[in-house]
Amino acid sequence: MNSNIIRCGRAVLHVTDLERSKEFYEALGFIVTELDSESVFLRGLEEHNHHSLLLKKREKPVLEVMSYKVYSDEDLDKLANYFENEGTKVRWLEKGTQHALGRSFRIQDPQGLPVEFYAEMDSVDRLLQRYDLYKGAKVQRIDHFNCAVTNVQENYDYYINNLGFACSEYTVDDQEQIWAAWLHRKPSVHDVAFMNGVGPRLHHIGFWLKDPMSLIDGCDVLASMGYAKNIERGPGRHGLSNAFFLYLRDPDGHRIELYNGDYLTSDPDFKPIKWDLNDPLRQTFWGHEAPDSWFDEASIVLDVHTEEPVETGEPKLKKTKPQFMI
Amino acid sequence: MNSNIIRCGRAVLHVTDLERSKEFYEALGFIVTELDSESVFLRGLEEHNHHSLLLKKREKPVLEVMSYKVYSDEDLDKLANYFENEGTKVRWLEKGTQHALGRSFRIQDPQGLPVEFYAEMDSVDRLLQRYDLYKGAKVQRIDHFNCAVTNVQENYDYYINNLGFACSEYTVDDQEQIWAAWLHRKPSVHDVAFMNGVGPRLHHIGFWLKDPMSLIDGCDVLASMGYAKNIERGPGRHGLSNAFFLYLRDPDGHRIELYNGDYLTSDPDFKPIKWDLNDPLRQTFWGHEAPDSWFDEASIVLDVHTEEPVETGEPKLKKTKPQFMI
Amino acid sequence: MNSNIIRCGRAVLHVTDLERSKEFYEALGFIVTELDSESVFLRGLEEHNHHSLLLKKREKPVLEVMSYKVYSDEDLDKLANYFENEGTKVRWLEKGTQHALGRSFRIQDPQGLPVEFYAEMDSVDRLLQRYDLYKGAKVQRIDHFNCAVTNVQENYDYYINNLGFACSEYTVDDQEQIWAAWLHRKPSVHDVAFMNGVGPRLHHIGFWLKDPMSLIDGCDVLASMGYAKNIERGPGRHGLSNAFFLYLRDPDGHRIELYNGDYLTSDPDFKPIKWDLNDPLRQTFWGHEAPDSWFDEASIVLDVHTEEPVETGEPKLKKTKPQFMI
Amino acid sequence: MNSNIIRCGRAVLHVTDLERSKEFYEALGFIVTELDSESVFLRGLEEHNHHSLLLKKREKPVLEVMSYKVYSDEDLDKLANYFENEGTKVRWLEKGTQHALGRSFRIQDPQGLPVEFYAEMDSVDRLLQRYDLYKGAKVQRIDHFNCAVTNVQENYDYYINNLGFACSEYTVDDQEQIWAAWLHRKPSVHDVAFMNGVGPRLHHIGFWLKDPMSLIDGCDVLASMGYAKNIERGPGRHGLSNAFFLYLRDPDGHRIELYNGDYLTSDPDFKPIKWDLNDPLRQTFWGHEAPDSWFDEASIVLDVHTEEPVETGEPKLKKTKPQFMI
Repeated sequence: MNSNIIRCGRAVLHVTDLERSKEFYEALGFIVTELDSESVFLRGLEEHNHHSLLLKKREKPVLEVMSYKVYSDEDLDKLANYFENEGTKVRWLEKGTQHALGRSFRIQDPQGLPVEFYAEMDSVDRLLQRYDLYKGAKVQRIDHFNCAVTNVQENYDYYINNLGFACSEYTVDDQEQIWAAWLHRKPSVHDVAFMNGVGPRLHHIGFWLKDPMSLIDGCDVLASMGYAKNIERGPGRHGLSNAFFLYLRDPDGHRIELYNGDYLTSDPDFKPIKWDLNDPLRQTFWGHEAPDSWFDEASIVLDVHTEEPVETGEPKLKKTKPQFMI
Repeated sequence: MNSNIIRCGRAVLHVTDLERSKEFYEALGFIVTELDSESVFLRGLEEHNHHSLLLKKREKPVLEVMSYKVYSDEDLDKLANYFENEGTKVRWLEKGTQHALGRSFRIQDPQGLPVEFYAEMDSVDRLLQRYDLYKGAKVQRIDHFNCAVTNVQENYDYYINNLGFACSEYTVDDQEQIWAAWLHRKPSVHDVAFMNGVGPRLHHIGFWLKDPMSLIDGCDVLASMGYAKNIERGPGRHGLSNAFFLYLRDPDGHRIELYNGDYLTSDPDFKPIKWDLNDPLRQTFWGHEAPDSWFDEASIVLDVHTEEPVETGEPKLKKTKPQFMI
Repeated sequence: MNSNIIRCGRAVLHVTDLERSKEFYEALGFIVTELDSESVFLRGLEEHNHHSLLLKKREKPVLEVMSYKVYSDEDLDKLANYFENEGTKVRWLEKGTQHALGRSFRIQDPQGLPVEFYAEMDSVDRLLQRYDLYKGAKVQRIDHFNCAVTNVQENYDYYINNLGFACSEYTVDDQEQIWAAWLHRKPSVHDVAFMNGVGPRLHHIGFWLKDPMSLIDGCDVLASMGYAKNIERGPGRHGLSNAFFLYLRDPDGHRIELYNGDYLTSDPDFKPIKWDLNDPLRQTFWGHEAPDSWFDEASIVLDVHTEEPVETGEPKLKKTKPQFMI
Repeated sequence: MNSNIIRCGRAVLHVTDLERSKEFYEALGFIVTELDSESVFLRGLEEHNHHSLLLKKREKPVLEVMSYKVYSDEDLDKLANYFENEGTKVRWLEKGTQHALGRSFRIQDPQGLPVEFYAEMDSVDRLLQRYDLYKGAKVQRIDHFNCAVTNVQENYDYYINNLGFACSEYTVDDQEQIWAAWLHRKPSVHDVAFMNGVGPRLHHIGFWLKDPMSLIDGCDVLASMGYAKNIERGPGRHGLSNAFFLYLRDPDGHRIELYNGDYLTSDPDFKPIKWDLNDPLRQTFWGHEAPDSWFDEASIVLDVHTEEPVETGEPKLKKTKPQFMI
């Protein structure tokens, strides 16, 4: 199946204090496209679509949905038909239901993650060359979703075989079972990654920065505004993906990765890179052991049909916080 | 036609002194994959294919061919058939003819540029995380070709309608005629650009750097090795493409662009950005007026069938060295 | 004579449109300490003294004075006595005469430059770690004055022998006559430089940046705010001083250098570096030939006693715009 | 007393495997000025003196001595006289005793640290503009010594009152007792710092980098060469000193700080910055809690007279590994 999914597009997060969250994301360098008493629509500096992060004021901080952009409305219908034919329940949201978004539909993926597809989003001014508006880490664009699931192999097979994703890098345990996988539609390392863990949960949303100094500047600006405690891990470099990374926790604990590095994955003869779970350079090429919170904590996700939290389960493979890390 | 062209892949340049050229490109930070008395095969640090720049020792410094990678051997055959059906003469080079490359074919494009297509190239070790080998400007990968042609509109139409390229940005003169265009297959600003000028000629080959400091480091290292005179233009930032750029002339005068910046062009609803030829920010967002040599000089190209230089002609639209530049 | 001059301290510039100048310097990243209808007091992010640049609204754009900070009030008296004893006319400005400044005195130096000495300036909050206030090029502190004079040798001798400056680097012509000299009291490359030219005039005031990326960021922000035309030269690297530099013209044409690089010059056994006037790497290690304006234009200076412009004269050595530059 | 001490000059470390240590420091970007079977003389890229770090092959890894450069041989004699007059035992090492160094003398300071003074060291080529030799973190010059002592107040008083140092920043406990102090002769944050701890011991030697990216590059190069485990802490930013820092352990466990940031401390009216021991931003403006090893481990120092290790004692104030760190 050629899904004609183009890329990860946006995430919808529930937050408990809209003003507090807005301040945090603006400090990071996001642009507020629009806001009202219930929602804040945020985008990066190079984004020409209305938003890549939507915050909704709600009682509980959860991930409502992760959304992918598909090529055309026709592709959207084809994809919905595909899901219905294979028995996946589809929930349509007609145009007008969601601000600034065309018609879309949502499904729960095989591992229980809430996923949405859309073809159209309102266009807005791209602020790429409005350097006078650059602030904080100068967030450029959304890059990827990273999720904890109980059975990585199942989602790995489904996204590759049924949705046309390609694998750039993956981790295996000592029985050669897939413990984590980085999958992409756009030719970067990933649009989505799945890691073995208590799931389904959202581990983090990754945003792309234009250079390493923007990440350092982001740390300095956040610290000067009182957000030093929101820096959970990094800066450091991952072996896997070669990313120069920083992990932050927003005021509700949702995790954001600032990300620079990456490489071009356009080629069919690019061989996915295999890492052993016990390779000390995998998670951290250099930098320090991740804190327990980074391994243990993640955002609860909603059921797209009931709008209730999805119950989590224990992972199929063993949970591992590698002890050898640098 | 869906060409399944993936990206620009490599260029073949003729140089008059192989050792002198090798030294120059190594100073820039290229990796020598292989060399013999007749040729040097060069690649960037993240490239997993054998080479993106092939230097051949010959009497005269010309561009032999610009090569694009297609998805599969089957796509290669389809594309050759397509050209033959429309009356474009195809020259096949069977596997074994060219070192490290699978079978390929070459054509002269509508504007007389020598173009090659291939699906396979030998894989080699990617050196992305061998930071101990990083030197000079730490060249990461090939990014684009930039060519002067006499009739930009013709190639614009052909590459978009017949070969499936998309336009990211373009320049028009005061009659709204296309004066220059940036076209891509991979979702970056371009794989190839065409500019109105004495043509067909190769203006430059662009290579992508990982960050702006690599460009500054490149200037420092080149200057300390006696190559300051090879810096022709920059550093500066283009309005068009938002690239942080540096133009260099190799020992034979072939022009290389070091390039950082760019943005993601994956979306079908991304509207090509139109620039007026007289917009002072177009060529240089900041930085200085380009020297005459940058406007006047470019590399002669070969005929893929006769292997003789292609005669150049005067451009259809007026030649312009904008005087208003900053 | 141990002058106990500590460092260059501040400059006083006359500008014709205070609001327009304020906007320009704020775009560059200066902090406005205070302002009124007649003057704007500016400082860099790490400066704990009230200002390092004072703009006064006047009819004509000139340099009123360059001021040096001395160690103590006692040193100030000693220095004034010294000048009076050798026959240099001293003009005292008692405390209260100048806002935020203690008592000071002014002289015309041997080459006719207006120079002031003071020991005290009001303290203000240092904003070094208020990264949330960093803007533009994030100007950190004043670094040096650069002046055109008709007889470099005379000021070279006077500043070294009479005022205790040391020479870090200098340029000689083909008769080994000193054509330019870089002199310091603080252990950096310079507090003041003298160049052979139509003088006495102020060529530029140099401000220190924390890193090379701040200079690139400065260019981007200035260009996005419409100040691209104010960039006169650079970015590039000087051979002399090893500075990564950018020259800007303020709205009245006063020239500002943004400067990063430098090295420690604390040691008595550091041998001043001699450059030949014709060394192509001297002015530009890499980067482009300076525009004529950079050689020809400079700010008129005032007489500290009459407050009238000082008439300029032709330089003793030949004026040279080196043609060999890269 | 005006000591005419100019700056910290060099350290002499004993290492157990000369080749292994040489490889490590070269990976960091040091230049080997000279070496023989017993010693390696290292310097930074901008240093015009023979070495700033001398490694000697010995049985046990200790600090032999920290050396300060004074202005002249006459100043050296004055300083030696001063020490002898106050009853501090002086050990002269005549010219020729130490390779590349003029005559010097050594003392044990009030807290038992081995300290040396010299005026002359051989000059060598400064490699500041040999960018082709830049490697790793591109170490520029020695910046400071940091030592653990049992009674910070005693050394604070002695260095300020008797040796003419000035204090830039200091930390007090809740009884306003000095817990740590940063003291300088050159106008940077420090030439030496004293921290309350098991002492006398050398905590680290700080080397100055030209910009933040050199520190990131250093991490990447070290990791690619197998030295990731030698990175003990950072990168991060200190509140105190504003330094962007990285702490490394050499193959014998001696600690090296790579350091960029700092600010100018030339002014007599600069007020030392006071930090509370419990201020969470003091040690880390952003970045992660220091590991235990950073608090607990340090290099043993030698007695300059007996050449035996100096016995350590417990600190006067309470040992504190702040728990509140970010």
